[in-house]
Amino acid sequence: MSQLTILDNYFAEKREKHLEELKKFLSIPSISSLSEHKADMQKGAEWLSDSFKQAGLENIVIDETKGHPVVYADWLHAEDKPTVLIYGHYDVQPVDPLNLWESEPFNPEVRDNKLYARGASDDKGQVFMHVKAVEALLELEGSLPVNVKFLIEGEEEVGSPNLEEYIESNKDKLAADVIVISDTGMQGPGQPAVCYGLRGLCGVQIDVKGAKGDLHSGLYGGGVQNSIHALVSILESFRDEEGTIEVEGFYDNVRPLMEEEREAYAALGFNEDELKQEVGVTELFGEKGYTHLERVWARPTLEINGIFGGFSGEGIKTVLPSEAGAKITCRLVPDQDPEEIVTKLKAHIEKHKPAGVTVKVTEFDKGKPFITPFDHPAIQAAGRSYEKIYAVPTAYTRGGGSIPIVAAFDEILELPVVLMGFGLSTENFHAPNEHFHLENFDKGLRVIGDYYNELSSLSKEELKK
Amino acid sequence: MSQLTILDNYFAEKREKHLEELKKFLSIPSISSLSEHKADMQKGAEWLSDSFKQAGLENIVIDETKGHPVVYADWLHAEDKPTVLIYGHYDVQPVDPLNLWESEPFNPEVRDNKLYARGASDDKGQVFMHVKAVEALLELEGSLPVNVKFLIEGEEEVGSPNLEEYIESNKDKLAADVIVISDTGMQGPGQPAVCYGLRGLCGVQIDVKGAKGDLHSGLYGGGVQNSIHALVSILESFRDEEGTIEVEGFYDNVRPLMEEEREAYAALGFNEDELKQEVGVTELFGEKGYTHLERVWARPTLEINGIFGGFSGEGIKTVLPSEAGAKITCRLVPDQDPEEIVTKLKAHIEKHKPAGVTVKVTEFDKGKPFITPFDHPAIQAAGRSYEKIYAVPTAYTRGGGSIPIVAAFDEILELPVVLMGFGLSTENFHAPNEHFHLENFDKGLRVIGDYYNELSSLSKEELKK
Repeated sequence: MSQLTILDNYFAEKREKHLEELKKFLSIPSISSLSEHKADMQKGAEWLSDSFKQAGLENIVIDETKGHPVVYADWLHAEDKPTVLIYGHYDVQPVDPLNLWESEPFNPEVRDNKLYARGASDDKGQVFMHVKAVEALLELEGSLPVNVKFLIEGEEEVGSPNLEEYIESNKDKLAADVIVISDTGMQGPGQPAVCYGLRGLCGVQIDVKGAKGDLHSGLYGGGVQNSIHALVSILESFRDEEGTIEVEGFYDNVRPLMEEEREAYAALGFNEDELKQEVGVTELFGEKGYTHLERVWARPTLEINGIFGGFSGEGIKTVLPSEAGAKITCRLVPDQDPEEIVTKLKAHIEKHKPAGVTVKVTEFDKGKPFITPFDHPAIQAAGRSYEKIYAVPTAYTRGGGSIPIVAAFDEILELPVVLMGFGLSTENFHAPNEHFHLENFDKGLRVIGDYYNELSSLSKEELKK
Repeated sequence: MSQLTILDNYFAEKREKHLEELKKFLSIPSISSLSEHKADMQKGAEWLSDSFKQAGLENIVIDETKGHPVVYADWLHAEDKPTVLIYGHYDVQPVDPLNLWESEPFNPEVRDNKLYARGASDDKGQVFMHVKAVEALLELEGSLPVNVKFLIEGEEEVGSPNLEEYIESNKDKLAADVIVISDTGMQGPGQPAVCYGLRGLCGVQIDVKGAKGDLHSGLYGGGVQNSIHALVSILESFRDEEGTIEVEGFYDNVRPLMEEEREAYAALGFNEDELKQEVGVTELFGEKGYTHLERVWARPTLEINGIFGGFSGEGIKTVLPSEAGAKITCRLVPDQDPEEIVTKLKAHIEKHKPAGVTVKVTEFDKGKPFITPFDHPAIQAAGRSYEKIYAVPTAYTRGGGSIPIVAAFDEILELPVVLMGFGLSTENFHAPNEHFHLENFDKGLRVIGDYYNELSSLSKEELKK
């Protein structure tokens, strides 16, 4: 029997037992944002710790932080083999509005081969799969093909306020060759995806001031600079009419798309007409020479998020406004540096400042973009594992948004990050009736099990980023 | 004795009597905007009617309108001589906040040769001067050098909602050769001004819509048009960086400044440094090739009065906003037509509409610009009358704002309009402690008397616009 068949049989046999265990995990209302659930957070951490123990993991510890605890465990006996750091979270979102749930959020129920409960998909279900994959391999083989370290936190749903510090102070303990995170989505039903990059973020608020107070446009209009005109002039200078950003040096460090990436995106057969219908526009818009997916995954942006100034009530007020402001943010891609981009934005604003006004620029929080190269062996291996189980080509994707903690892992631990998700975008995470398709639970256990084997065939040298 | 000396002596002799009469007029709280003063409005109209009778005017009538009455009177026995239509208003602004008045607003009081009362300067005091000038000439000469018609309304402070209709339905009754309005200001203390032009107004609201709802800038940013960017792009296309308006055909009908006008403005010795200090800017801004006064008096503008869209709260929200809007208004100069300019604005917006959005344009109320040519004999004669009494050169000015009713006179009656004011900008009209400098009351009576004589030396043909 092949290793995969053995795994298949094992998971088939244990299915009911596993589901019962997962239901217990899901029945703990570990809502990190609500202080009345502090004890439940502790329970969640303890349940996980017990589960690690049962799986055969070692050095299990519930590490206190300033907020909710981090649960750590490892198994480090695969000499000379790579070490995999598995990150996930045991906290969940609140459940309001409760009346929209068809079954109780913390009373898990299987309907139509879907498991309904808060956290089923995001992220307890997916964390549980990693634990069970390890348990299966240890039971079946007595050892793992790779070393593993679990780092499961309790504050992901509140923005991981204490995790970066935890990682910084535990760099040695967390040292690994690759980090695997199962907290993102598949490309669609039956269509697995490996996400290997996310965009970063930076932004500024621009406040323009002209005259010391609003002026009458009859008495002064045409003779004193208008703060909104001045602001508009700065904003318009940022982009050309096709959306290309005209800030000097903005694209300097943008890593070009590899031909293989463009082919991979094209192979996804993204339907632009469906997108138009979804968002309600007659035409898409963006940088020339790139497809929609390339634009939102691999190209940086500069978007005006808000603008304000002068009179916005009903009708007319012939005022020459003293003040106007706008908020802009940039989504950044590798290898743009948020600090450097903000410096360039400021220089651009200074250069394009119209006559007759003063301009104040305030920086927003920044986040670095992240990428594990498309052709990195850890990424390609993940794709192969998916393909073995799902029997369709894996989608290689990036995300247009930012997950700050991923960037932190990337930056502090300097590891290749593999985002290997089993959720579906329709599974109502953060909403009532969250559920998890058990088809992906069943297949996912085998994908993960296989992936550990795939990784064991790679040398530490090959895994280096 | 010269005619002027005779007038001088007459007004000097009657001064106390005149002031007592004016105080009675000012003691009537004819606040047009407050319904509890409806009876006072009637009292004001009746007082005026009695005053006309005492002066020797004829055909006196209190004409009812849908709002407060108009008071009409005439004297039409100057055969073959021009007819002067005198417009003014007997209604006043509210008096809040009452506690800031040093003396009761409707208990007139002279302090330091200034008459304090609501309406002292705006406009009862100035209307009164015209009545007394007529009375003087009739008493002294037994006749007037010109025909006169008084049209004194009671709704100027609420936007003259019924006057245009009144003028339309009484075109024959109001027919004249020139209209004189004393409801504006002098250039400064001791510095008389004739205002011979005002700017008009038109404007639109521009509403831009992109996607049907706000989008996440991570998931969609760079791939769907941003409504604020699109709006900014339209707005920026309206003007170049020096403030010249780039709407096609915008300047087509702009009447160029006459060399004499430019010289007259330059002669005013306008202090741009004082203006900068007043409004709090380090540099003025406007169309190249024009001085500040030329820009605000004789050049059209396009100003953004308000802008709104997306997130304007504290901090950051990475939204790609669905909707954004702006309000713009244009100050127009002769011979621009508001309808035509709005048509051109719309064509410009259509032409500059960026991809991926829809744009809605909503028109605001319009007002025509007005001008009586600088070299018109009625304007120059007014200047001469001022100079005889004030013994300094008269300032020939225009106003940057709009007085809709002046444009209506200009348009319906097709008469040269002479704005011959005796107020000072420091006299707190519309504010507590409104007052009128009696120096200008004394001199103004003589200027007006002299002006009627000056006009009588002009033929109807010469006065044609």
